[in-house]
Amino acid sequence: MAFAEFDLIDTYFSQRMEQRDDVELGIGDDGAVVTVDAGNQLVVVTDTMVAGVHFDQDTPARAIGHKVVAVNLSDLAAMGAEPTWISLALTLPSIDQDWLQGFTHGLREICEYYGCQLIGGDTTQGPLAVTVTAHGVLPHGSAIKRTGAKPGDWLYVTGTLGDAGLALAARQRRQQVSDAHYRRITDRLYFPSPRVALGQSLRGVASSAIDVSDGLLADLRHILKGSRVGAKISLDELPLSLALTETLTQDQALAYALTSGDDYELCFTVPESQRGVFDTLVAHTASKPVCIGRITNEAEALQLTLQGEPWQLPETNTGYEHFASPIEPSV
Amino acid sequence: MAFAEFDLIDTYFSQRMEQRDDVELGIGDDGAVVTVDAGNQLVVVTDTMVAGVHFDQDTPARAIGHKVVAVNLSDLAAMGAEPTWISLALTLPSIDQDWLQGFTHGLREICEYYGCQLIGGDTTQGPLAVTVTAHGVLPHGSAIKRTGAKPGDWLYVTGTLGDAGLALAARQRRQQVSDAHYRRITDRLYFPSPRVALGQSLRGVASSAIDVSDGLLADLRHILKGSRVGAKISLDELPLSLALTETLTQDQALAYALTSGDDYELCFTVPESQRGVFDTLVAHTASKPVCIGRITNEAEALQLTLQGEPWQLPETNTGYEHFASPIEPSV
Repeated sequence: MAFAEFDLIDTYFSQRMEQRDDVELGIGDDGAVVTVDAGNQLVVVTDTMVAGVHFDQDTPARAIGHKVVAVNLSDLAAMGAEPTWISLALTLPSIDQDWLQGFTHGLREICEYYGCQLIGGDTTQGPLAVTVTAHGVLPHGSAIKRTGAKPGDWLYVTGTLGDAGLALAARQRRQQVSDAHYRRITDRLYFPSPRVALGQSLRGVASSAIDVSDGLLADLRHILKGSRVGAKISLDELPLSLALTETLTQDQALAYALTSGDDYELCFTVPESQRGVFDTLVAHTASKPVCIGRITNEAEALQLTLQGEPWQLPETNTGYEHFASPIEPSV
Repeated sequence: MAFAEFDLIDTYFSQRMEQRDDVELGIGDDGAVVTVDAGNQLVVVTDTMVAGVHFDQDTPARAIGHKVVAVNLSDLAAMGAEPTWISLALTLPSIDQDWLQGFTHGLREICEYYGCQLIGGDTTQGPLAVTVTAHGVLPHGSAIKRTGAKPGDWLYVTGTLGDAGLALAARQRRQQVSDAHYRRITDRLYFPSPRVALGQSLRGVASSAIDVSDGLLADLRHILKGSRVGAKISLDELPLSLALTETLTQDQALAYALTSGDDYELCFTVPESQRGVFDTLVAHTASKPVCIGRITNEAEALQLTLQGEPWQLPETNTGYEHFASPIEPSV
C-alpha cells in the first residue's frame, strides 16, 4: 500500500505539538524557518538510534520517542544551551499505527516538558531507525566546551551512574535484579532525564562539561584529551543507587558506574574561584551534583582511588563504543 | 572489532572540509556552535537516504555522499536560503574504508562547491542509511513558501525534467537507452545539481516555490493545496532532454517529466508585477527557468494541455511516494 509521507506527518506529527514564538514556519514546507535572537548563538546536535543496536524489539515505542529526544537534549545540556527545535528523520519498515502513536506520545511529552518544538523532518521506508537533530540557543560566547578544564578545577557528576547499564544487563539476563529495583532502573534506561536546567545554569561557572552517554570514564577522557589535563577521582564519592549497591559487589557496582553507557548525566569541572557561586547555584536543585575529584596537570592521566588506595577496573572494558554494540541485532 | 566513533570522525570527517567564519565550534564537542547574523533567519531541512530504497548496492559511495547533501540543498534552494552548515547521521553495517573514502569525497566536493560546512553528526552501526540536516540563512521575512501563489501568477520550472527517472528505469532494465544518453542521465540521477543560486535570487520575486523531488505534478500539487489555487500547464513548454525525446514516445516522455522523481529542479510562481525583474534576473543564468503555465483560481484544479488540447497521463501514476518505493531492497 502506498502511504503518503504527507498523510503520515499530518496524522502523527502536525497536531498538538509544542508551539514556539520563534518558529515562523514549521512542518509542511520544504524547510522550517526559525529566528535566533540577536546576541544568541545556535547549538546543533545529532543522535541516531537504530533498532537492534540502541534498542531491542521489546522497547516500548513511547520510550524510543522519549529517548531519541532525551539523548539529544543531554548533548545540548552539556553545552549549556536552552533547547528550542528538533528535526526528526524516521525510517520505518511499515506503517504500524500503534507503534506510531506510542512513539509520537513519547516524543511529544518530552518536547512539551522542555519547551522544544518539532519543526520538520523526513519519513522513509527501511529498517527501523530514528535520527534527531536538536537545536538550542545560548548567549554569544557562553557555550561550555570540553577544552576548558584546568589543573585544580573540581570534578563533578550529576545523578547516580550505572543504573541504565544494570537495567540493560537485567533485561539481557546477564544480571539478576529485584523487581523493585528493576522497575526503577528500567525507567532510567527507557526514560532518561537530560540535565537541561542544570546545564544552562553552568554557563559562566563550569570550565568544561560533557554528557555521560558512553560511560563516565570514556566521556571524561574526552575532557582530559580536549583540555590536555588529567584527573584524580575518589571512588568513595561516586553517586551509586541502591539498585547497584544492593545488587552487586562493590567492584562490580563501580565498574557499572564507570563504564556502562546510557546515563545521560553531566560530568563537568568548576574552577576553585567559581566554587562559591556554584554551591549557591545548586543548593536547591533536585539532582545535586557530587564532587568526585579534581583535575591534575598530568595530561590524560586518570587516577582512581578507593579509601585512599589506587583502584583498577576489574575488566579492560572502558566504556561503550558504537561498532562494539552490546545488543545483538534483534529487530 | 571495536571501531571508535571518534576515530571514524577524526579520520574521515574532520580533515580538509570547508571551514566557515560563522562556525565557532565544529566537529569534536557535544554540539556545534554557530552564529546567525542579526537580521537573518535560519532555515532547517532534513532528508534521509536508505540503502535499497533511495539507492541500490551499485550506486557509487561518492554519489551517495553527493546526493544526500544535494537533496537537502535543493530544499534550502526552494526556500530561497543560502546553505551554511550540515549535520550528518551515518549508519553503516561495517567499516568499509573504500566506501567511506568515496562517500566522504562526494560529500566534501559538494560542501566545498556550495560553501557549506559539516559541523557534526553521529556514526552508528546498523543497516546502511544516511540522514543530513542542512541549515541555511536568509534575510528576516524573505523565505519563499508554498502558500504564496495567486491566480494569474506565471508558473516556471528549471532544468529538464524526467532524466533521473529515465536513468533509474534504464538501470533497472525497464527501459533501453543509448550509451551516450545513459551516461548523461545517470549523472543527473547520481549527481543532481540543486538550484541554490537561483533559489536565493528568487527572494522577493517568486510568490511561491518548491523543489521537484517527487515528480513535478506531485510537488506542484503541494503549492496548489498550500495556496488554494489551480494551474494550467502547456505541456508544449515542458523542458525535455534529448535523452527523453529520442528514447521515448511523446506521451511516455511527458509522463516521465511529470511524474518521475529525483529531478531536484525548482518549480515556482512569479506574479505579473515581478515578471520584468525576473526576466532581467535570469537572463544570464545557466539553467534558465522556463514558463510552463499560469496559476488559476480553481482550487487544486490542474489542467494539462498539449497543442491546445486537454491531455491526460497515460497511467494513474502521479509521482513518487515514500512507502511505495520503486526500488526493491537490495543491500
